[in-house]
Amino acid sequence: MEKYVYSFNEGSKDMKNLLGGKGANLAEMTKIGLPVPFGFTVTTDACFKYYEDGCMVNDEIKAQIFEKLKELESVMGKTFGDVSNPLLVSVRSGAPISMPGMMDTILNLGLNDDSVMGLAEQTGNERFAYDSYRRFIQMFGDVVLEIPKAKFDKIFDGKKEEEGYQYDTELTPADLQYVIAAYKDLVEAEIEREFPQDPMDQLMEAVQAVFRSWNNERAILYRQLNGISSSLGTAVNVQSMVFGNMGETSGTGVAFTRSPVNGENRIFGEFLVNAQGEDVVAGIRTPQPIAEMEKAFPEVYQEFNRIAHLLESHYADMQDMEFTVENNRLFMLQTRNGKRTAEAAVKIAVDMERDGLIDRETAITRLEPAQIDQLLHPTFDKKQLESQKPLTKGLPASPGAACGRIFFSAEDAVEAVDDGMRVILVRQETSPEDLAGMVSAEGILTARGGMTSHAAVVARGMGKCCVSGASEIKVDEEKKLLTIGDEVFEEGDFLSLDGTTGNVYDGEIDTVAPELKGDFGTIMKWADDIRTLAIRTNADNPRDAQQAVEFGAEGIGLCRTEHMFFAEERISAIRRMILADNVKERRRALAKLLPYQKQDFMDIYSVMGERPVTIRLLDPPLHEFIPHTQTEIRALAEQYNLSYDKLSRKVRELQEFNPMLGHRGCRLAVTYPEIAEMQTEAIITAAVDIYLETGQKIVPEIMIPLVGLEAELAAVKKVVVETAETVFEASGVRLDYKVGTMIEIPRAALTADEIAKEAEFFSFGTNDLTQMTFGFSRDDTGRIIKEYRDKDIFEDDPFQTLDQKGVGKLVEMAAELGRKTRPNIKLGICGEHGGDPKTIDFCYRVGLDYVSCSPFRVPVARLAAAQAVVNNR
Amino acid sequence: MEKYVYSFNEGSKDMKNLLGGKGANLAEMTKIGLPVPFGFTVTTDACFKYYEDGCMVNDEIKAQIFEKLKELESVMGKTFGDVSNPLLVSVRSGAPISMPGMMDTILNLGLNDDSVMGLAEQTGNERFAYDSYRRFIQMFGDVVLEIPKAKFDKIFDGKKEEEGYQYDTELTPADLQYVIAAYKDLVEAEIEREFPQDPMDQLMEAVQAVFRSWNNERAILYRQLNGISSSLGTAVNVQSMVFGNMGETSGTGVAFTRSPVNGENRIFGEFLVNAQGEDVVAGIRTPQPIAEMEKAFPEVYQEFNRIAHLLESHYADMQDMEFTVENNRLFMLQTRNGKRTAEAAVKIAVDMERDGLIDRETAITRLEPAQIDQLLHPTFDKKQLESQKPLTKGLPASPGAACGRIFFSAEDAVEAVDDGMRVILVRQETSPEDLAGMVSAEGILTARGGMTSHAAVVARGMGKCCVSGASEIKVDEEKKLLTIGDEVFEEGDFLSLDGTTGNVYDGEIDTVAPELKGDFGTIMKWADDIRTLAIRTNADNPRDAQQAVEFGAEGIGLCRTEHMFFAEERISAIRRMILADNVKERRRALAKLLPYQKQDFMDIYSVMGERPVTIRLLDPPLHEFIPHTQTEIRALAEQYNLSYDKLSRKVRELQEFNPMLGHRGCRLAVTYPEIAEMQTEAIITAAVDIYLETGQKIVPEIMIPLVGLEAELAAVKKVVVETAETVFEASGVRLDYKVGTMIEIPRAALTADEIAKEAEFFSFGTNDLTQMTFGFSRDDTGRIIKEYRDKDIFEDDPFQTLDQKGVGKLVEMAAELGRKTRPNIKLGICGEHGGDPKTIDFCYRVGLDYVSCSPFRVPVARLAAAQAVVNNR
Repeated sequence: MEKYVYSFNEGSKDMKNLLGGKGANLAEMTKIGLPVPFGFTVTTDACFKYYEDGCMVNDEIKAQIFEKLKELESVMGKTFGDVSNPLLVSVRSGAPISMPGMMDTILNLGLNDDSVMGLAEQTGNERFAYDSYRRFIQMFGDVVLEIPKAKFDKIFDGKKEEEGYQYDTELTPADLQYVIAAYKDLVEAEIEREFPQDPMDQLMEAVQAVFRSWNNERAILYRQLNGISSSLGTAVNVQSMVFGNMGETSGTGVAFTRSPVNGENRIFGEFLVNAQGEDVVAGIRTPQPIAEMEKAFPEVYQEFNRIAHLLESHYADMQDMEFTVENNRLFMLQTRNGKRTAEAAVKIAVDMERDGLIDRETAITRLEPAQIDQLLHPTFDKKQLESQKPLTKGLPASPGAACGRIFFSAEDAVEAVDDGMRVILVRQETSPEDLAGMVSAEGILTARGGMTSHAAVVARGMGKCCVSGASEIKVDEEKKLLTIGDEVFEEGDFLSLDGTTGNVYDGEIDTVAPELKGDFGTIMKWADDIRTLAIRTNADNPRDAQQAVEFGAEGIGLCRTEHMFFAEERISAIRRMILADNVKERRRALAKLLPYQKQDFMDIYSVMGERPVTIRLLDPPLHEFIPHTQTEIRALAEQYNLSYDKLSRKVRELQEFNPMLGHRGCRLAVTYPEIAEMQTEAIITAAVDIYLETGQKIVPEIMIPLVGLEAELAAVKKVVVETAETVFEASGVRLDYKVGTMIEIPRAALTADEIAKEAEFFSFGTNDLTQMTFGFSRDDTGRIIKEYRDKDIFEDDPFQTLDQKGVGKLVEMAAELGRKTRPNIKLGICGEHGGDPKTIDFCYRVGLDYVSCSPFRVPVARLAAAQAVVNNR
Repeated sequence: MEKYVYSFNEGSKDMKNLLGGKGANLAEMTKIGLPVPFGFTVTTDACFKYYEDGCMVNDEIKAQIFEKLKELESVMGKTFGDVSNPLLVSVRSGAPISMPGMMDTILNLGLNDDSVMGLAEQTGNERFAYDSYRRFIQMFGDVVLEIPKAKFDKIFDGKKEEEGYQYDTELTPADLQYVIAAYKDLVEAEIEREFPQDPMDQLMEAVQAVFRSWNNERAILYRQLNGISSSLGTAVNVQSMVFGNMGETSGTGVAFTRSPVNGENRIFGEFLVNAQGEDVVAGIRTPQPIAEMEKAFPEVYQEFNRIAHLLESHYADMQDMEFTVENNRLFMLQTRNGKRTAEAAVKIAVDMERDGLIDRETAITRLEPAQIDQLLHPTFDKKQLESQKPLTKGLPASPGAACGRIFFSAEDAVEAVDDGMRVILVRQETSPEDLAGMVSAEGILTARGGMTSHAAVVARGMGKCCVSGASEIKVDEEKKLLTIGDEVFEEGDFLSLDGTTGNVYDGEIDTVAPELKGDFGTIMKWADDIRTLAIRTNADNPRDAQQAVEFGAEGIGLCRTEHMFFAEERISAIRRMILADNVKERRRALAKLLPYQKQDFMDIYSVMGERPVTIRLLDPPLHEFIPHTQTEIRALAEQYNLSYDKLSRKVRELQEFNPMLGHRGCRLAVTYPEIAEMQTEAIITAAVDIYLETGQKIVPEIMIPLVGLEAELAAVKKVVVETAETVFEASGVRLDYKVGTMIEIPRAALTADEIAKEAEFFSFGTNDLTQMTFGFSRDDTGRIIKEYRDKDIFEDDPFQTLDQKGVGKLVEMAAELGRKTRPNIKLGICGEHGGDPKTIDFCYRVGLDYVSCSPFRVPVARLAAAQAVVNNR
């Protein structure tokens, strides 16, 4: 027979999955002899059983609850529902992972028309007893019976008004009896039966309500937002009541063992004399700082201090505790690891390691990788933010805070910045042509596009704040108007963007510059000592590369060459190349690009020293470099002295129904080998020249994108190798270089054993791999993904966190097949996922050699890579 | 030591891979005692070795050739290069599979300045000897030394002109000696060395030339066109010469044991008296029908007849033979299974089975499935075709012949047909809106789109001739002009299309209606008895369904519902549905569609009887139903009484960058469950009504498209099941139905074990699965695929023949995973590949239950499914 109910003295902190976090910690505190009101926990298994049995608590579980209740009565010397000495309990939910969305606490359960009198007698406080009963009916009615709280309030406030009272405390026992009767009538009218008088019925209904609340909307949303699996289930804690509201010798409070704000090592918290449970949080009375407790209850305070330190040592982590003082006796109601800011997390971890409380491996797990962003980007002034309501919310595409005047085109944005303004670039969606505007702007706001849209990817690459896919806004780029709800913003109006939350605010909010504390550097150093994955960065220019190196990047995992082509003097050459009618013309145009490309690579090599640099050959479809509107085409035709008809025919020919699946990647190099030739020449010549100048030996890794077939890779590799040979022969210098491919097409992963015959390295391009494996265009499915997350079809956005079941299966397969053919093949990931902690854990498990991410994610990746080692021990 | 050279008496017909087809058959004929001039074969292994060794014949192989040559000399009693009695040989290529693109035959090898005199003496015919030498130098110069043939012709024709001769035969021995000297000078000038005089050098150069020719352009192209692996290699046959040109008692000929045109059981062929090798084919003299040979050489004819019958019995197949008569002695130079028309193939197979020569399993393998098309579609009159040169060539998208006046829009086409014209619809590319025009037209010609473009798929579905992706044509739909090269065609001009070859002809060519002979039915019946795969069809309307049933379809594997929405009264409702602002409006529009949909399904069910019908829920992105040009939007706005701005905003919102990977398939049903509800209601109500009317029990299979996640399928399935339940409860009738999914997204295949928890059947949608697995949009990559085939990157077009290594791996994986979860899951394929023989073989091997293809492919699939059983024994 399975055990579904555990007394607090039967469990321990290691039983979180079964008892929930709260239950496990109550058991643990009981075990180490702390003053915990006795009780028991109904397990998460009972919760599964409840759902399995069609939302019913079966007889076996009921019997076990009943048995534990008897035990509780015997321990407490009180009887459930007794008229003279009633046992009262609190019922609280407690999932394995803390979940604010779940059911509220029910206090004073066990009260009924009879036992309320027993409570009055026992405490000698009639008013307290009836008030407790009144509160219980209201809580139970609201939380368990789902009767709108407002209906209870109406009765209560009605009575106060009728009697002319200002404060709740003015109600007399008789008034409260009146309210209780009215509450009970309300309940009967709403649920068509009496308010349950049998405490056992009350208990069972409350237990079921907790189970039910596991799947309420708030809980589901919270799980979605925090990536918590819906298969965990919740436990239920039933605990004998203690009362902090029994007069001036009683009270209740919450406290942290250290400051959750900055990590300072002193007890931090608040308490209230003569108060119960929620009063501290509810804000009816202002609670006192915890230090004041020393004055109110000096002995209790000392005891609390002792327990707090004991708990922190015991858990070896900062604790967040709830306690109650009943007639000068301290009771611990809860302890758990406290939530904290990034700043606090860093300080606490380093302090604790120094004090020998935890080792370095533990220390590095105490910082949420996602939190690191807080330490790297400017943020809004918290005070100012409190008084602001967001106008709308988009996707938190690139963290940080930005504030400026809105402009609707890249040119306008650049001009405004030249005029000394701070600018927010607002676009329907950005394209590579907006790059200059994005570079100039403080932040970017787009109406369309997901977390991996052009705007998002580029902004993250630049460490620039971006809110993308703000689907509620309307952008009229022509009229230069932005509409949010009823409000219309014109060019030049101020907006503030929070790229960390996706919030968009009206007007100006001040930003605060990032502060990198010394402790942060210490933790990063520890992480580097522990991790085995190398961390590279995605960088297309020396500035980003420099930033990434400062953040600890050990190489470039992805240098996209196409971004280099948009500068004015280059775009002209690339357009001539595209419009060329024959190889000769094409080569002539490419020859103009060569010196620029070569200089680009020399600049990047200079920054990177002898760190590896992976350079991807031209990837996007050529039409991305060509204008599409009639006016633009006409202008271009004039500029190039071409007929408008001819040019527009060419533009039409280049158009594609699904450019993502069209003529791009290595397909370009198959059709126009001269492009790959020019790029290889630039890559190798730059390496040779750097070597001749400085003696520094760069090992360029030439990456051929979008490969699906071995023969395709072989064809392009041949061009690369021949070109490199020519350079070596001409220069008399011979350097090492590698030729490899991105694995971003499902077929490449499926046939990786063949691809590896040609490829010296694989870099998983998980953006495109995810798009093709799911059949989701990231530019088109922002809304669908949101809907899927709302409907619980997706646990995570697959463009943020690698889908391990599907896309991950391909990655694992490819890694295995690749190594089968070429045991020493170098494996990395360069999709946006490379900076995602869950994905990094996966990459560690499948044995990749490195992850590559945008510069501002490098510290995140360093930490996550170290945590992967520790968490997979 | 490996054996690289085999004498004819050392091999047999089963050694084709080693000896090539020609060599194996020469050995076989030798083995069974037929008169074959003795010789030997250098193996395909020697060919691999040649390439392995960097295009060199190594010493070991050379030694083996020399040894066999000695043996040949001794058997023939002649010596290579001898002045009095020289051994002469022919050198011919011979790959394991017959390959016309390979090197031409070289005759008379062994002649040089000395041995030519020996030949003159030996034959007593000086003119013959010098003419043989002259021919040898020319053949060797052209084929081995790669000297342009025209240069030899210039010398020869110059001499004739100089002497005033009309015929070649007028040249005297002295003239020929002059020509020989001039030829040798030419060779020396071209290759900067003497024409090789050493017969052994001649032989080795010829052998290498054969090996080299394996990778010449013609051979590569031929292999591509015929799907022959480039890894087979070629053998070389060296055979002692016999001469058909030694006077009136000599001759040469080619013959088939039965008619390759219609299969008639009598010897069919031609011969020429006093002629050598190519003379029969070259068309200088008109050869005589083989029957005439009886008069010229009665005894030889009888002997030939005997050998022909013997060979046919021996090979149990119709033979294509070459022979030479030298001084009344018959020599067999080659035999092989003869190529034949579909009509002949059918008759020969059935006749041979009746005569007990082959069994039924063998008989069904004697018909190329691809040939069946010839029997099902109208074709051009062959006589008329001979005098026509194609204007251009597109893709053979849908077989058949069509002739008509060209029109450039669906409306114009429909109107012209209404006016009694035959019409060819010419479009840049078709879209669903062109459907009416496609139905009306005789044939369709498009400039863009591949073998699985909209035009191609729809045309094949209708069994209508289509040439797609004719990339050399220019279509100006606005001006109604078609330009091919320099020629401009206007609306109303006649064109003729051959959908079997992709050829486009000027003007009118008569078509011939298909004749389904009784023997064809017999073969199909045999195929049905043998095959295990069921054959279904892709049909969206009763007409196609009817056609398919007549062709033997056993169910519908794919009924696409979207094609049903384009009729005028429906498109209006679907547009209102799309433009609806809320669920209520959407439901109102859908309610209008319901009766149409229901009637559609009732009509299809009526045709299909109790055969299974798989119906796919709405799949394409909604913008396909909405116009996109300003004018159209303005008209629609007026029609629907909407503001132009609102409508065009909606249209813009619906636009997608990559519609293939956008909001379509089951994603529509997740967002708008009411669409799935309406369709399910129509599907189930139609089945119920048919049952109530006729008692016929349809088991509809409801197919949810584009599923990538189990949760996605579960969400839509829930809607389907609930709707079906409602119908059953309302009607009081309960019928069986199935809910399943298309596996067309790589992720679905990778996680098929999970998907199978919800899916009762999988239907592999290999069109989309191929697109996503390769990252190739079929609408955009026609040109790339052509280029890839030209460059040998693709062996087959992956949209025609399933890519077994990549896409097939996913199919196999999904089948396995699906069966693991649900052992009795039904598995089928409904992509265009379902009608491709190679793919059908694959489907048989991975254990699918059925294939589904367009109606006109059903007979092909029946045959291919039977062949799969036989070929995998």
